[in-house]
Amino acid sequence: MAAESGHGDHQIDGRFNRRAVLVEEAQRRVLAAAGTVASEHVPLAECGGRRLSRELRATCDWPPFARAGLDGYAVRAADTALASPSNPATLRVVDTVAAGGLALAAVEAGTAARVMTGAAVPEGADAVVMLEQTAEAVAGGEKAALIKAAARPGQNVAPRGEEFRLGSPVAAPGELLTPGHAALLGTFGYAAVPVYKRPRVAVFATGSELLPVEAPLAPGQIRDSNSAMVAALIRECGAEPVLCGTLPDELAALREALARVSAAVDMIITTGGVSVGDYDAMAELLRGLASYSSSSPAPAPSMLLFNRVSMRPGSPTSAALLDGKLVLALSGNPGACFVGFELLAAPALRAMQGDPSPAAQAIIARLSSDIGKGSPHVRYVRAKLRFGGDGIVYADPLAFGKSSMMASLAEADGLAVIPSGSQGSKEGDVVQVLLLKRTC
Amino acid sequence: MAAESGHGDHQIDGRFNRRAVLVEEAQRRVLAAAGTVASEHVPLAECGGRRLSRELRATCDWPPFARAGLDGYAVRAADTALASPSNPATLRVVDTVAAGGLALAAVEAGTAARVMTGAAVPEGADAVVMLEQTAEAVAGGEKAALIKAAARPGQNVAPRGEEFRLGSPVAAPGELLTPGHAALLGTFGYAAVPVYKRPRVAVFATGSELLPVEAPLAPGQIRDSNSAMVAALIRECGAEPVLCGTLPDELAALREALARVSAAVDMIITTGGVSVGDYDAMAELLRGLASYSSSSPAPAPSMLLFNRVSMRPGSPTSAALLDGKLVLALSGNPGACFVGFELLAAPALRAMQGDPSPAAQAIIARLSSDIGKGSPHVRYVRAKLRFGGDGIVYADPLAFGKSSMMASLAEADGLAVIPSGSQGSKEGDVVQVLLLKRTC
Repeated sequence: MAAESGHGDHQIDGRFNRRAVLVEEAQRRVLAAAGTVASEHVPLAECGGRRLSRELRATCDWPPFARAGLDGYAVRAADTALASPSNPATLRVVDTVAAGGLALAAVEAGTAARVMTGAAVPEGADAVVMLEQTAEAVAGGEKAALIKAAARPGQNVAPRGEEFRLGSPVAAPGELLTPGHAALLGTFGYAAVPVYKRPRVAVFATGSELLPVEAPLAPGQIRDSNSAMVAALIRECGAEPVLCGTLPDELAALREALARVSAAVDMIITTGGVSVGDYDAMAELLRGLASYSSSSPAPAPSMLLFNRVSMRPGSPTSAALLDGKLVLALSGNPGACFVGFELLAAPALRAMQGDPSPAAQAIIARLSSDIGKGSPHVRYVRAKLRFGGDGIVYADPLAFGKSSMMASLAEADGLAVIPSGSQGSKEGDVVQVLLLKRTC
Repeated sequence: MAAESGHGDHQIDGRFNRRAVLVEEAQRRVLAAAGTVASEHVPLAECGGRRLSRELRATCDWPPFARAGLDGYAVRAADTALASPSNPATLRVVDTVAAGGLALAAVEAGTAARVMTGAAVPEGADAVVMLEQTAEAVAGGEKAALIKAAARPGQNVAPRGEEFRLGSPVAAPGELLTPGHAALLGTFGYAAVPVYKRPRVAVFATGSELLPVEAPLAPGQIRDSNSAMVAALIRECGAEPVLCGTLPDELAALREALARVSAAVDMIITTGGVSVGDYDAMAELLRGLASYSSSSPAPAPSMLLFNRVSMRPGSPTSAALLDGKLVLALSGNPGACFVGFELLAAPALRAMQGDPSPAAQAIIARLSSDIGKGSPHVRYVRAKLRFGGDGIVYADPLAFGKSSMMASLAEADGLAVIPSGSQGSKEGDVVQVLLLKRTC
């Protein structure tokens, strides 16, 4: 597995020639290499959680006609100006309009039409009086309504085009589609919705100590738990994992396995083998590549983007282009793997689906306990959010400092960002928390 | 569509004989009728977002052996007590242990073993010194390590069983499985995960004015946008929608359609037809049922649970058991349909998957603007959450008072709960906000 070393920066820099980049710079390089995937159409009822691939516009005014907001009588407000329970206005009923039905008669002075919720308000009427403020009657041998309250013009009527005008934008490219979008797109007749395809991501776990999950434990060995975790993280980003199993710490096997899958996927994620150990094959593979240069006119098909990031956990997290394919080499340590995914893989996967702001959503919260001593790296500490009765959000740090701890991975709502520097953060300090994209 | 009337309570009560229950009572009745679905096994990499159907326990101690936290030398701390860069301790190297490899030699006084991250720490050693604080050497013709810093006992060693003891609980029944859980379950060899099945939910839209989404608009008609919205909401709850199309406002057709699908699904959701209009077929169907009675010893296979809820929007929201199947009859008004789903259908679907606290997650936020005047009903106002730089959460109300407005459905993060009473809520008031379960 060979995960994180992560101490004694300058020594590592000197000895292993790995220069740390800031998280923001690492993100910039990964996003620049990410591109977007192709688009496809999905049935409207399956669009939730997908990202729109082009702007959609209103195909009609909405509402498409003046619409009754509730059950009652469509009237001319002026006819009801003096109406009250003791002095109701008596209006001849000229029509009854169901939702979906057509108004046959116009409402003229002294008349009304019975309308159901959602029905088109007949020509001439400018208000709807709710049924509960009316009574049925007969006047002059004809059906009539007693209106017991004065109506304001426009009351309980949604005018045509109140919400949308024909051609106005309904949803933007890259938007994550919610159930509310499904309602909007249905309204405007989008039975098939253009969305970005789900990026396909190959997942490899490297490390000679790794067993498949279904295997019995053997001395000194552990099961590959990162592949399933990364698969679940990939799905949360709307992408599709392609599980490629485990690889031993052998350069040739690794190189061959990545090359074999490369053309069939949009990104490759590996876990493990990125540290400074004697058997860190992924690190070895990346050492063989040309380094990133901000001054090169065009990116080389194969190049190292970075092999050290100024963050903890996950400082050996690396990224490269291999034959034009983005490869993210995450730490084998579960906690560091998780942080590397959230900071680098997740934004890349969202960007590939057109997300115009693919970084994790950041909120401000107050720390509910001290976070240790200073660190030369920015730290990303798993935290549980707690919403106080006072409207304040608190971040409760979980298992600080133990990046190998797995139990807290399942509980975390976010990553509290503790700035680098000589001091840690104190209880009550406001800190940025990156939200993990979760369904709860 | 015939959606919400929702005004003049006592009049409706008197005239239409529909007695409003409080939201909490409506939820209680629906949850009591919900039950749980059967369970099934899914592959580990597909468990994210599902709910566990039985407790899972640690199948071994974790870590399973004393584990090196980083690359370096396993030593006896006592041997390094006086070590410093200028006065390193010289220890004979007796072994090299890769992650996954076996330690062949014990570390005795005056010796050390080279260990990689994740390797088993050899017998006798009680600390690991990071590689960066060491140097290679030769002593007495044999390979040796110069240790340049004093080690604390236990340093950089995760003792066996530090995180989990064999048999201790790892995840509880009903828990929503996250990527972190996938890592944990993989660690303990759960290649197949027991989860509750996805409840199957039939979705009908009722209303003679409704056109299929793919149809061109006709005068007075609108497209069925609720079915797609409800389908997306159902999926967000981990359940599977079964779209059954639209039905006219005709009692016989409605009754027949529900009966036909009933045995194949776990729940039925209808939209529309629940109000007091002349063509509200769903309301008519429910009127024919025996009423809920808290004193009846056993629930009847068919009974009305409620047909009016003290909430706005969505007061005509109704629920029933029909031949033993839970039927939720939501308003046809998109906004009211949405609120009815979040308050009643979503908790029921989560409970059916074993969620021990299936109500929506409620947080406290500060209102960023006034919310109008009083209401005899509790109001659920769509809101966007905003996290201030001061650690305070603000709820920005969206499109207050327009339950038909669809644009804000796509934007809302939560429903702000405005208590019933003679006054509304003011800017700066703390209010409860029910979080919509979203992936962002």
